[in-house]
Amino acid sequence: MNLITLLTDFGEKDGYAGVMKGVILSIAPQAVIVDLSHAIPPQAVRQAALVLGRSARYFPAGAIHVCVVDPGVGSSRRGLIGQVGGQFFIGPDNGLISVLYRRVHQEGGLIALYSLDNPDYRLNPVSHTFHGRDIFAPAAGHLAGGVALERFGERVLDPLLLAFPEPRRSAHGWQGEIVSIDAFGNLASNLDERHCARPEALIIRLKGHSIQGLSATFASSKPGQLAAILDSSGSLSICLVNGSAEKEMGARVGDPLELIEG
Amino acid sequence: MNLITLLTDFGEKDGYAGVMKGVILSIAPQAVIVDLSHAIPPQAVRQAALVLGRSARYFPAGAIHVCVVDPGVGSSRRGLIGQVGGQFFIGPDNGLISVLYRRVHQEGGLIALYSLDNPDYRLNPVSHTFHGRDIFAPAAGHLAGGVALERFGERVLDPLLLAFPEPRRSAHGWQGEIVSIDAFGNLASNLDERHCARPEALIIRLKGHSIQGLSATFASSKPGQLAAILDSSGSLSICLVNGSAEKEMGARVGDPLELIEG
Amino acid sequence: MNLITLLTDFGEKDGYAGVMKGVILSIAPQAVIVDLSHAIPPQAVRQAALVLGRSARYFPAGAIHVCVVDPGVGSSRRGLIGQVGGQFFIGPDNGLISVLYRRVHQEGGLIALYSLDNPDYRLNPVSHTFHGRDIFAPAAGHLAGGVALERFGERVLDPLLLAFPEPRRSAHGWQGEIVSIDAFGNLASNLDERHCARPEALIIRLKGHSIQGLSATFASSKPGQLAAILDSSGSLSICLVNGSAEKEMGARVGDPLELIEG
Repeated sequence: MNLITLLTDFGEKDGYAGVMKGVILSIAPQAVIVDLSHAIPPQAVRQAALVLGRSARYFPAGAIHVCVVDPGVGSSRRGLIGQVGGQFFIGPDNGLISVLYRRVHQEGGLIALYSLDNPDYRLNPVSHTFHGRDIFAPAAGHLAGGVALERFGERVLDPLLLAFPEPRRSAHGWQGEIVSIDAFGNLASNLDERHCARPEALIIRLKGHSIQGLSATFASSKPGQLAAILDSSGSLSICLVNGSAEKEMGARVGDPLELIEG
Repeated sequence: MNLITLLTDFGEKDGYAGVMKGVILSIAPQAVIVDLSHAIPPQAVRQAALVLGRSARYFPAGAIHVCVVDPGVGSSRRGLIGQVGGQFFIGPDNGLISVLYRRVHQEGGLIALYSLDNPDYRLNPVSHTFHGRDIFAPAAGHLAGGVALERFGERVLDPLLLAFPEPRRSAHGWQGEIVSIDAFGNLASNLDERHCARPEALIIRLKGHSIQGLSATFASSKPGQLAAILDSSGSLSICLVNGSAEKEMGARVGDPLELIEG
Repeated sequence: MNLITLLTDFGEKDGYAGVMKGVILSIAPQAVIVDLSHAIPPQAVRQAALVLGRSARYFPAGAIHVCVVDPGVGSSRRGLIGQVGGQFFIGPDNGLISVLYRRVHQEGGLIALYSLDNPDYRLNPVSHTFHGRDIFAPAAGHLAGGVALERFGERVLDPLLLAFPEPRRSAHGWQGEIVSIDAFGNLASNLDERHCARPEALIIRLKGHSIQGLSATFASSKPGQLAAILDSSGSLSICLVNGSAEKEMGARVGDPLELIEG
C-alpha cells in the first residue's frame, strides 16, 4: 500500500483537493488517498501544523503526508519533501512541519528533508498559485512510485520551525493559553498532564469562568456544564458537556488560561 | 473487498475522521473506506440513525458501518459490534442502530450483536473522549481482517433502540411530523405511501401552508412552488421546487404536519 | 484502475454521496472513487460545469466523471453517458458537460454521447428524485465494469450546451465579468492572458476599485492588497492577498469588470 494523506485549506467547493488526487493517481495509480482535512481556515499554517502533529502517529509507517496551507505560494519559499520518523512529509517550508518535526526529533526518529527542486517531478508548466497541484501532488505520486528522496533536490538542514507559546510558571500554578478549538467547540490549551499534579484540586480560570477539578470524561459532568479534561491528544481542554464551550464563552485561539494548583 | 463506511458528527476541520482511517488502514491495509457523513450535527444520534437506516441497503453485503455520534463517550454505555442482516454495525450502544435494526428485523434478517470489550482489539491506551479512534476504528480493522464477532465480547440481546414518533389517525386523515431535513431544505415526514390512499386528493397542512395533492416529481411543479412528494426513501416530503422549504417555512424537525384525506 | 469522480450539490450531511458510492461499489468493487466536490451550491449547474471543465484534464485517461447537479430530476430531460476526449462523462443533459465539451471539441478530441435509457443498467425501481443513486451511479459502475457505451441507449448528437458570457471589446480594452468565486474569495473572470497584451500597464476596474498591472504571484503583493493575477486555470482573477476579495469588495458572480489596456 502507498498511503497518501492530504491536509489543506482548500475547502470543499472548488474541486482543488480532487484535482490533487487526479494528479497523484495519474502518476501512482496504486496510491490510497485519505483526506486529513480540507477545512483548515485559509492560511492557518499553525492550525494545520497542530492537526498534522497530533494525527500522523495514527497512520501506518510509510504514510506520505501532503500538506498545503501555503500563503507564500509563488514566493521564494522552498518546497520540502522528506522522511520524518517512519513517515514522509511533503509541503511548503513555512512551518507546517513544526509540530510533527519536534515530536519525532524528541523521540529520536530520523529526519531527512530535501528541497523540492527537480523539474522532472513537477507538472509542466508550474502555475504561480497552485503548487498543491503542480509540485506537491506530483512529488507525492513519484515518491509513492519509488523515486528516492535525494532525486528531488538538495538536503535541507534548516526547515522553518514555528514557535508555539509555552506555558509559564505563575505564583499559584501555570499561565497557559488556548491553542486550538475543534468542531465541537472544545478548547485545547498548551497545558497537559505534566501541569496537573493534583487533578482533583486544581482550578482553571478562563474568560471569567472558574472550573474546579479535572474530569475523567465528558460523562462525569452534566450536559450544559463546563468541564476540564485531558483530551484525546493529552491536552488540558475546556469543554461544555454536549455543547460548545467556544460559543458559550466566546473563546478564541490565544485566549489566556490560568491553572491554579490546589 | 472489505468495505467500511464512516458516519460521524466530527465535522471536517480537525482531522478526526482521517485519524480513524489511519487506524483502520494500519490494521487492515486492504480496506476500502467510504464516508457516509461527517456532518451529522453534534450529538444528533437520531439524525445519524435515520441516515444509516436509509443508506445501508445501498451498500454491498459484508459492508461494515462504523457510526460514531457519541455524547456518552467515556460513560458506562457499551460499544456494539455485530451482524445486522448481511452487513455489520460498529458503534456506541446509544440508539444509532435503531432504524437499521428495526428494518432488518422486520425483513427477517439475522441480527447478532456483541459487546466491544476485548482489549486485544483496541488501541492502548484508550482515551476517555475519542472511542472512534481507540475502540471503534480498531474493531472495524480487525473485523475486516477476519476476527470472528464472538472474539470481541459477550452477546448483546438488548441493544438500546430509540422510539421514533409514529403517525396518529386523526378525524380526517393522519397527524404526522417532520423527522428529518436534508441539505436542500426538503422536509421528510414520518408519513409514507401507506398514508396516501388517494394521492391526488389529499391536502397537507404544515406551518400555516396548505398543499393540495401529491406530485410525482419536483419537475411537475414550478420553481418556487411548494410540493408534496414521496422522496427517494419513500417518505412523504415537503419541498420547495429549486429552493429550500426549510428556509421558506422556517420549519424544524418535530414540527407537526397534518394530512387530510380527500 | 477504474477511476470514478463525483461532482454534486448534495452537501455533506445526508449521506447522499456515500450512497452513490455504495451503489457504484456494489456493481464495480474494483472502482476507485474520488470526490471532486459535493459543495456546489444547490442547482448551480453553471458552477459545476466550470469546476468539471477546469478539473478533468488533471485526471488520467479513462476517468469517469459522474456529475449530478440536477434541478430537472424527474422531468423529461435525458441522462447522458459518453466519451469526451480520453475520459467519460455521466450526468443529466442540462449543460453540466458544457465547458468540458467545448474544450475537448476545440482540441479535436473524440466526443460520443449516448442517452441513459437502458433499464438493465439502473436500479429498480427508479425514484423520481434521486437519479444520482438510481441511474447515474449504476451507469458508472456498469461502465467501469466494461459495458459498451452503445448498450446504454441511443446516440445523442445535440447535448444541451450552456452559453457562458464572452468578453466584449470596449473603447480602451475589454469588458468582462466575474464567472466564478472560490473558497478563498478569489474572483475569476472570463478574461485570460489573450486579453493582457501589456500586463504591467493594464488597469482593472471592479466595483469602484482600480488595480494597476498584473502580478505574477500572490507573493509579489503585500497581505491585504488587491492584486490581479492569472490564476491556476489561466483566468484573470482578482485576489486579496491572504484575504478574501469576495468579502472585501462584496463581489458576486456576474459583476462586470473592465480591463483598460495601458
